[in-house]
Amino acid sequence: MPLTPEQQAEIDELRASARPTLRAVSEGMEKHLYLARPVLDHGFVRAIDYMGDDAAICQAARVSYGRGTKAVSNDEGLIRYLMRHWHSTPFEMCELKLHVKLPVFVARQWIRHRTANVNEYSARYSILDREFYIPEADALAAQSVVNNQGRGEALSGEEASRVLEWLKSDAARSYDHYEEMISTEGQQGLARELARMNLPANIYTQWYWKVDLHNLFHFLRLRADAHAQYEIRVYAETICEMVKDWVPSAYRAFEDYRLGGATLSASAIDCLRRMLNGEEVTQETSGMSKGEWREFQAVIAS
Amino acid sequence: MPLTPEQQAEIDELRASARPTLRAVSEGMEKHLYLARPVLDHGFVRAIDYMGDDAAICQAARVSYGRGTKAVSNDEGLIRYLMRHWHSTPFEMCELKLHVKLPVFVARQWIRHRTANVNEYSARYSILDREFYIPEADALAAQSVVNNQGRGEALSGEEASRVLEWLKSDAARSYDHYEEMISTEGQQGLARELARMNLPANIYTQWYWKVDLHNLFHFLRLRADAHAQYEIRVYAETICEMVKDWVPSAYRAFEDYRLGGATLSASAIDCLRRMLNGEEVTQETSGMSKGEWREFQAVIAS
Amino acid sequence: MPLTPEQQAEIDELRASARPTLRAVSEGMEKHLYLARPVLDHGFVRAIDYMGDDAAICQAARVSYGRGTKAVSNDEGLIRYLMRHWHSTPFEMCELKLHVKLPVFVARQWIRHRTANVNEYSARYSILDREFYIPEADALAAQSVVNNQGRGEALSGEEASRVLEWLKSDAARSYDHYEEMISTEGQQGLARELARMNLPANIYTQWYWKVDLHNLFHFLRLRADAHAQYEIRVYAETICEMVKDWVPSAYRAFEDYRLGGATLSASAIDCLRRMLNGEEVTQETSGMSKGEWREFQAVIAS
Amino acid sequence: MPLTPEQQAEIDELRASARPTLRAVSEGMEKHLYLARPVLDHGFVRAIDYMGDDAAICQAARVSYGRGTKAVSNDEGLIRYLMRHWHSTPFEMCELKLHVKLPVFVARQWIRHRTANVNEYSARYSILDREFYIPEADALAAQSVVNNQGRGEALSGEEASRVLEWLKSDAARSYDHYEEMISTEGQQGLARELARMNLPANIYTQWYWKVDLHNLFHFLRLRADAHAQYEIRVYAETICEMVKDWVPSAYRAFEDYRLGGATLSASAIDCLRRMLNGEEVTQETSGMSKGEWREFQAVIAS
Repeated sequence: MPLTPEQQAEIDELRASARPTLRAVSEGMEKHLYLARPVLDHGFVRAIDYMGDDAAICQAARVSYGRGTKAVSNDEGLIRYLMRHWHSTPFEMCELKLHVKLPVFVARQWIRHRTANVNEYSARYSILDREFYIPEADALAAQSVVNNQGRGEALSGEEASRVLEWLKSDAARSYDHYEEMISTEGQQGLARELARMNLPANIYTQWYWKVDLHNLFHFLRLRADAHAQYEIRVYAETICEMVKDWVPSAYRAFEDYRLGGATLSASAIDCLRRMLNGEEVTQETSGMSKGEWREFQAVIAS
Repeated sequence: MPLTPEQQAEIDELRASARPTLRAVSEGMEKHLYLARPVLDHGFVRAIDYMGDDAAICQAARVSYGRGTKAVSNDEGLIRYLMRHWHSTPFEMCELKLHVKLPVFVARQWIRHRTANVNEYSARYSILDREFYIPEADALAAQSVVNNQGRGEALSGEEASRVLEWLKSDAARSYDHYEEMISTEGQQGLARELARMNLPANIYTQWYWKVDLHNLFHFLRLRADAHAQYEIRVYAETICEMVKDWVPSAYRAFEDYRLGGATLSASAIDCLRRMLNGEEVTQETSGMSKGEWREFQAVIAS
Repeated sequence: MPLTPEQQAEIDELRASARPTLRAVSEGMEKHLYLARPVLDHGFVRAIDYMGDDAAICQAARVSYGRGTKAVSNDEGLIRYLMRHWHSTPFEMCELKLHVKLPVFVARQWIRHRTANVNEYSARYSILDREFYIPEADALAAQSVVNNQGRGEALSGEEASRVLEWLKSDAARSYDHYEEMISTEGQQGLARELARMNLPANIYTQWYWKVDLHNLFHFLRLRADAHAQYEIRVYAETICEMVKDWVPSAYRAFEDYRLGGATLSASAIDCLRRMLNGEEVTQETSGMSKGEWREFQAVIAS
Repeated sequence: MPLTPEQQAEIDELRASARPTLRAVSEGMEKHLYLARPVLDHGFVRAIDYMGDDAAICQAARVSYGRGTKAVSNDEGLIRYLMRHWHSTPFEMCELKLHVKLPVFVARQWIRHRTANVNEYSARYSILDREFYIPEADALAAQSVVNNQGRGEALSGEEASRVLEWLKSDAARSYDHYEEMISTEGQQGLARELARMNLPANIYTQWYWKVDLHNLFHFLRLRADAHAQYEIRVYAETICEMVKDWVPSAYRAFEDYRLGGATLSASAIDCLRRMLNGEEVTQETSGMSKGEWREFQAVIAS
């Protein structure tokens, strides 16, 4: 469990003190607030704050004075319409703030999504904790032989043990030296902003991350995808579960149109039409490259 | 008063239904929620939702688990430090959503601030109301003779009357024709997306506008400034009053370091040092252009 | 023709003075530079500057030291791969700067794309020209009866004449009054920032607009689409022709995967699989709404 | 020297092949193109491409048809005016693309500036080189005793030697294990996306970074500042030298108004006025905190 008793007490205190508000309230998200959902061996995701709910999406789309229509079915239809026709601005009217604890190499992927607000724990100012991501055995995968950017089979037992041993001992040694370098006992003590350079990329960091729902969906589509690296995917999947409770209609539309959907090229649509007309189409007659054909097959295969 | 009874009823209903939340609550902002604060002759600003408060700024800056320090004075000091040293990300952790009704020519200035989310009332889809901004007599100013981009004295009575008459009659005629063009009585009716082109820039539009506190402060610094056009400045000033109640510590820091502060160039600082050393410095010996010198004088003049 | 002889002379001078550069050069774009391509009755698009070419996309994707591979076919394949898998950052490495003259109501749609840099002609500082968009007869369309946000048949001759007469006379009268209001002959003269409010939305404005290729493709996909308003679509189509010459490989991939492609929902993919398995699927058995089914049919219909 | 002969040959080839262009050309920047300027022990900054020059800033500000005024002095004055009055959009009309090689912990600071385009070398796809930042002895500083976020005196010789020894040996061991983990000789070979987690934050990475001049100035003001961490400051200073040659007028204005300028709070301005009126003001009578007073003294001290 990644939290200290003091941290847990702070969370419990926050969860004990409900206050009245006139704002839109999402019951589904209220039950998640502040709680740390564990991810990987020492990480977590905590929802800290949110703005808006399903109705707020419609309210903004209609630029309305009140909460808008009372019929939830109307809102659901509008949300599906907006998602299907790429109307992004109404979804931008909801906002989520998360506290995330994650390995540095995951943070480096994550931060490539620039349309968000971030406050990271400062290793110039503070001392990082001795916590490193050490993969589970079944997550210790070999380099993929078909995809240069991916992983394949799990490593065999002996190789896996060797890898785990290195990961653990190198992390421990690096952290020992980090501590000794910044220590001021009997020496000046190296500046923290310098000492941190000795720490490996599997050390954990933390940040507050705030993002609107449109950009969050974009992040989730890419990072909850099967091709995303496992270590970031588990964070994305955890966030998906929260979003599903927060804005259920929007999440359903997202699942149907984005997560479970697919984009076909003009060439693929042409093949499809020929196939529906009874023509036998092969990669050779498709006009598609082998890679495209393989991806197209994956879309249409039952 | 710019609201219909139906709109007011929707607002009243929203204000009557407080619900419990675990989120940070700003009492100061709760009292503003949904209420339309009138601006210009038909416009308004309404706060629709907010995220965060003064403590949330500090909580993000500290990447903390709970609400952080209990001492408000500590938070105030931290907020001043963050503002003074241009730490923008903690302020980005607060968010405000407004419903604004404003003339189109004001909307066109406003939208130049791109780091915000906007949903505007669609004149392709809907019919605009017959509401136009007609300035008060004392806002009917002549072109400035010292500043190409600004206004000077109020127009004399006769000239003002002539201008007002034109503004009113041209708006009325344009709107009459707009209505007749889109009418489907006895004719096909022009598409709304085309008919709107006949409407002048003082017609009112509406939008939902959502922005984080850092970018809002940037907007307010430029638009609540004495050099901003009066018609956008009154919106900025109205928003300032809301922000003051929402995040009082942050607003005080903003007033001290931004609204009431000034940026001096290296040349100006050099002059200042010479003056403090007792030297008599004139524009000629200052190394500054006339314009810079005039602005420098305005900063240091008691 | 929208240019004055002085403006044309400035353009001719710019086109007469080639200079050596070590940067990537796109011959296809060089031939467009500075030339005003007419759009609508008084508008234009001019390419002012560009950064990068097809090879620059690949060079960035590979983070390479030189121009990368010499084989154009390799670059083409890589570009298609990047586009297909939504790798946006390599396309962001190309940049285009345009000078656009366009009606204000088109500018208001355009500016909703926020990830771009804009410098608009200032009507606070300068006097706008007497130029208004007056549609061609075949662009004078009725409101669509199937789509609340669109246009249908062209207006009949008599109704069209009436509309054109109003558009012209209202524009003329508004501009006459604009001129009289700002005149300083025998009066103080109203400030420009106020007088402009009398001008209708079909007056022309101008701006410099700079955007990276990824965001430009996003703009073009939405605005060169058949559902976009005609008056912005003609600008998008004009830009498409320039981009095709600038980065031909990237444009081909864009045409195949975006302009000519389609996104299918999970429900639509499920239907497709059933249909390819020989099942007869109708809207009723599809699980899709009528609107979705109609759009799905449009994708698969030969 | 950080380049291989092959890399240097690619650069030489690029610099040997000037081509004609009609675009704005900055002679000052042409001489920098492609050349790797060394930074730290293995890093560099290379300018890969640029868009615009001083005149382009003015051309955009004026929304002009040609290159605008011929008098350079007019352009200089306009640029100073734009900078002084926080007109950011004309500066956004210039763009710079850099290839940077830098330690990961520097990259993590750098990426916090989000308004830029980035393509980083992928350690999921490729193998990182065995290159680590090892500070010079005089850059090995102790933690500051007055500033929690900074460094103080250089470490004594013995302590410095110990630190350097750890940095070197830990990096070497981590990299040895990295290589052994991904090796496929006699084993499956760990996926690269996993193996990289063992590498410390002083390993070098590379990216293409593209940014407009306004946002670049913002980056440089913060990172070329005396309070920035030394390891990022040396990159910022190297870029400053390039920008000075690229857009000399804009850079001079930047130096005067931003780098060498200072922002005073309302309280500080009040003190200043009192001091210029002959009053003796102390921290106690200033209304400022000790920290603010110290910073104020630094501004006005000759």
